[in-house]
Amino acid sequence: MNMMRLKQDTVTLAHGGGGKAMRDLIESVFTSVFQPDGMEDQARLMDTALQEPGARLAFTTDSFVVDPVEFPGGDIGKIAVCGTVNDLAVGGANPLWLSAAFIIEEGTEIALLRRIVESMRIEAEKAGVRIVTGDTKVVGRGSADKVFITTSGVGVIPAGRTLSADRIQEGDVAIVNGVLGDHGAAILAARGDMMLSTDIQSDCQGLDHLMQAVCAAADVRACRDATRGGVASALNEMAEACGLAIEIEETALPLRTEVKGVCEILGLDPLYLANEGTLVLFVPEDQAEAALAAMKTTEAGQGACIIGKAKKGPKGQVTMRTLFGGARIVDMLVGEQLPRIC
Amino acid sequence: MNMMRLKQDTVTLAHGGGGKAMRDLIESVFTSVFQPDGMEDQARLMDTALQEPGARLAFTTDSFVVDPVEFPGGDIGKIAVCGTVNDLAVGGANPLWLSAAFIIEEGTEIALLRRIVESMRIEAEKAGVRIVTGDTKVVGRGSADKVFITTSGVGVIPAGRTLSADRIQEGDVAIVNGVLGDHGAAILAARGDMMLSTDIQSDCQGLDHLMQAVCAAADVRACRDATRGGVASALNEMAEACGLAIEIEETALPLRTEVKGVCEILGLDPLYLANEGTLVLFVPEDQAEAALAAMKTTEAGQGACIIGKAKKGPKGQVTMRTLFGGARIVDMLVGEQLPRIC
Repeated sequence: MNMMRLKQDTVTLAHGGGGKAMRDLIESVFTSVFQPDGMEDQARLMDTALQEPGARLAFTTDSFVVDPVEFPGGDIGKIAVCGTVNDLAVGGANPLWLSAAFIIEEGTEIALLRRIVESMRIEAEKAGVRIVTGDTKVVGRGSADKVFITTSGVGVIPAGRTLSADRIQEGDVAIVNGVLGDHGAAILAARGDMMLSTDIQSDCQGLDHLMQAVCAAADVRACRDATRGGVASALNEMAEACGLAIEIEETALPLRTEVKGVCEILGLDPLYLANEGTLVLFVPEDQAEAALAAMKTTEAGQGACIIGKAKKGPKGQVTMRTLFGGARIVDMLVGEQLPRIC
Repeated sequence: MNMMRLKQDTVTLAHGGGGKAMRDLIESVFTSVFQPDGMEDQARLMDTALQEPGARLAFTTDSFVVDPVEFPGGDIGKIAVCGTVNDLAVGGANPLWLSAAFIIEEGTEIALLRRIVESMRIEAEKAGVRIVTGDTKVVGRGSADKVFITTSGVGVIPAGRTLSADRIQEGDVAIVNGVLGDHGAAILAARGDMMLSTDIQSDCQGLDHLMQAVCAAADVRACRDATRGGVASALNEMAEACGLAIEIEETALPLRTEVKGVCEILGLDPLYLANEGTLVLFVPEDQAEAALAAMKTTEAGQGACIIGKAKKGPKGQVTMRTLFGGARIVDMLVGEQLPRIC
């Protein structure tokens, strides 16, 4: 890695001007780490998987504005890579290539950028994707908040693999890969304004190896990563798309004691807390054991468990059977729970 | 177009929260206009051109932070589509699909967003590309400046087409498609702090039809769009990559009188002013007439003309023969000329 020295310790407007200073910043901080094949504005790519009959290209994008940019368990760079890798993975694609576009506030420390970029390199390597193209823009002080990152991802969906919420059938079971709400709770605590002291780390992680394992072992009908809006929003979207009701069991929900505690203190519902490495997927009931076993062979799937099932009922309705045997409706999140969570 | 009513006239933090308000904003303002095939986080795509032997996929990204967001001749939406279409086109790719990710400041008017989105729809239609996937994030007042847009683009480079600056040979001529510096001058004037009153409009336009025409008519060695850093920076990059010198003729540069005037008043050099619909390309000298004729069959190529040529000389050096017969070095832009130009 070429840690070329820059003359400045912080980003200046000249670093966004299109001239020599910009080129120095890009080479010193970004391309020396990501090592794309060329320095042109576009990447030129081919993968044999794309040319197989029936294969489809998957394409997705997300902007990341998480505050603070560094938090327990990750930073905005880690989340920017994992988030886009996961969008591809939960749709059934094998992620191949990412782009990364940075909007940087004047005055941001170069050392912070280097830490973020190093996080991105590590996560991309773990997921087996390459960051092949990018962009940097600089805006004046007060026109952005440190750094925003937009990643886009391209992957290949193998022939014959169709994950789609309208494939969910009555009796299919809902599986999550681990504990819920860690990311939201970690960010809340990291902001400091709640005066919470916890050891909760963000769950931020790539889910592509897990998805490849479970897709090989079972007919995954559909999958969503439970980011903004949490598991509740993911389940609501899926229930609406498949035209069934979904019932989950409160006693089955994997929750850390600390996350429950944070939610109790602040009056939050962990079902709506954001996750950055947690998904919910549906498989036929008789394939649930195979799916769980496959997930548990991967690092991200150690906590895999069944949380509910699809059943006849009012279209799109998600209900939870509570500890005490009652039932309550789990609606879409109305209003905001937490801004700049990702 | 479904102009679903939103309850609010301005964007609130709830519009970024992952729940119902966000879904309403996305459906009302974005997907009702862009009409992607699905509402999932990823687009699933296939184009037969991708499967032809020797074809390559092109992938590019740019963030847009232009200030002001609406200016004479365009807005941030138009520039976000044209900029990414042009990055693909000047690399020899036929643009197919775009993603669009929005970072929106709390308090931004919904009506402004609708105008921006409509600009994007129009430009995408002109270029024959589809906006297939996207994202919205909302940040608090003062954490961004109205709206930032990041577009990524995927296209296909046909088999056998290789545009690359290292292919430029001694004697090849440099051609631009029209007048230089209009975008930079229009933005400067639009900011108002220069007290300039001009009729200059941004040249913001898609260059894909032009590129297809000229690539069919001549062996285009290499091409760059002359955005941040202007024609001077594009020529410097190309000269460095091909290992030759490039000489341009001051008398051959197509410049509007108004742009010359703005540059004289402010002490700017039009060679460094940004363009958003202007490219510079190299072809063998004996194909120059064919290239010019092909360019002139397209709207964006009406002003096509030769501005210089590649020649033996110090590697990477760009010089300009001046009006008075002298020569001066045209260096990379050092420092910033104008922040937030695109």
